[in-house]
Amino acid sequence: MSALPTATAFAPASIGNVAVGFDILGQSLAGAGDRATVRLTRAAGRVDILAIRGVVANLPLDPHRNTAGRALLGMLARRPGIGFEVELEKGIPLGSGMGGSAASAVAALVAANALLPEPLRLDELYDLAMDGEAVASGSRHGDNVAPVLLGGLVIAPAEGMPIRIPVPASLFCALVHPHFELATRTARAALAGSYELHDFVKQSEALALFLTGCFTSDVKLIRRGLRDLLVEPRRAPLIPGFAGVKQAALDAGALGASISGAGPSVFGWFEERAHAENAGRAMADAFAKAGLPSDVFISPVAGPAAKVESCVV
Amino acid sequence: MSALPTATAFAPASIGNVAVGFDILGQSLAGAGDRATVRLTRAAGRVDILAIRGVVANLPLDPHRNTAGRALLGMLARRPGIGFEVELEKGIPLGSGMGGSAASAVAALVAANALLPEPLRLDELYDLAMDGEAVASGSRHGDNVAPVLLGGLVIAPAEGMPIRIPVPASLFCALVHPHFELATRTARAALAGSYELHDFVKQSEALALFLTGCFTSDVKLIRRGLRDLLVEPRRAPLIPGFAGVKQAALDAGALGASISGAGPSVFGWFEERAHAENAGRAMADAFAKAGLPSDVFISPVAGPAAKVESCVV
Repeated sequence: MSALPTATAFAPASIGNVAVGFDILGQSLAGAGDRATVRLTRAAGRVDILAIRGVVANLPLDPHRNTAGRALLGMLARRPGIGFEVELEKGIPLGSGMGGSAASAVAALVAANALLPEPLRLDELYDLAMDGEAVASGSRHGDNVAPVLLGGLVIAPAEGMPIRIPVPASLFCALVHPHFELATRTARAALAGSYELHDFVKQSEALALFLTGCFTSDVKLIRRGLRDLLVEPRRAPLIPGFAGVKQAALDAGALGASISGAGPSVFGWFEERAHAENAGRAMADAFAKAGLPSDVFISPVAGPAAKVESCVV
Repeated sequence: MSALPTATAFAPASIGNVAVGFDILGQSLAGAGDRATVRLTRAAGRVDILAIRGVVANLPLDPHRNTAGRALLGMLARRPGIGFEVELEKGIPLGSGMGGSAASAVAALVAANALLPEPLRLDELYDLAMDGEAVASGSRHGDNVAPVLLGGLVIAPAEGMPIRIPVPASLFCALVHPHFELATRTARAALAGSYELHDFVKQSEALALFLTGCFTSDVKLIRRGLRDLLVEPRRAPLIPGFAGVKQAALDAGALGASISGAGPSVFGWFEERAHAENAGRAMADAFAKAGLPSDVFISPVAGPAAKVESCVV
């Protein structure tokens, strides 16, 4: 490493959709994440991805085809006259439904922003991170980048600032990641076709009860609302053993359980850490019965935000 | 009138859907309502509707075909051994989208409940009121009966207790009722067909922003959320002059404006009473341009609940 100004940022994994808020809700997840080290250069408008290490290595180094690269190119369009060199350390597996693309984009942006004489605002970072993530997912949505930027449970609107939603501090989630890759594009394709108004109404009711439960710390309302009648039925067949894994979570006391983002990871919310830990083991056992080894993550629902780990200017 | 135990209750008008919550949100409306006078009799299991007066008179007296009658028959199934005589005074026009069926059912139930030695719980009244309203509307939904029972802005779930949502006390609404009748069944038929997931996501985002705005008293979020991308476009053609009326509300500073319930009434939310009053006049002018005379109602968004006006046992 040279004496160029350098910053390193860590961005956590995240759970998109959170069952009840397809494409609009997300939460961050402690225990896994991506790390970006960014150096400020004088190569105006240029982003060079020097290395990608960790659990995923075969990602494109071309910045236009890389989530972190695309996000940083967007930043350079707003702050011309400089360039970036980037190294990525991936802790989030590809196609896991744990928001790896979002984490890389946000980690790179947060590190780079620490190097700017005039940092971008949070809503600008949100906008750029969505552009970056779209390179990987094929569509622009903020339900992973928003919670990674803000931490915790977040509403991710298509435009404007994401909004943090309070959750009882005692709530924990368990996420179980089975060892197979489900492409986001495949998971999106399963949603094609038309929908019934009746199902929208039921899902809207769930969303309203869930948000009311969060704002009033009413765990019973959260339990009534934390469900997905719309998307989960269409994606569940893509995940071997899903029904058993979900049932294991519910049997262990989950307030609700569903697919994390586009899958195949499955998560549940629990009233206390011990329930989440027990559920995590039972969910992993259920995946094992379907022939899939898996990793278990336990995190407060009010999980961490991306943060700068070091900065030398 | 005999010396039989007698109670009179008044139930206000209401706005179903509230733009952003089709079939799940409702609010009560001051300034119009239905009144029910109920007498306790010894004619076990029998409901006699003696008279219907007021702005609507040609409603069925057969209790099985009358919203108030059906609701009271349901009450008698839970409290056997007694009967009811009922007189209804309708203040809410038929097919106005102002929740007249719900008001009649709730007024009758609230009056009758005041006469019971063991009154029913609120969730039981909600259940019975939905049964009653279904006689008129053809489907069981609580977005009118819930706000009339509780007052204010309410989530009306298909099952269980309705839930009141806080709103800033300064907010007012204007509702303009054009003088023509739009049958709820006709308005429901306009919603047939399939829907796109994309539109549902946009509508869910609006619902989430709206509820967050209500819980945090953030009028900007309410403004972002108070809209209907799903149902309004399909029903607007049933209401002459709708586009002009809505625009008049927005031009007068509405946070949002849409169809009240199944229509044809149109409502808007405003940051203060004076804005609502100005808007009401402008909206009525716009209906007049479409050839329709109309009535204007101005009410706090946190409107009144049904209440017992007199009770002699």
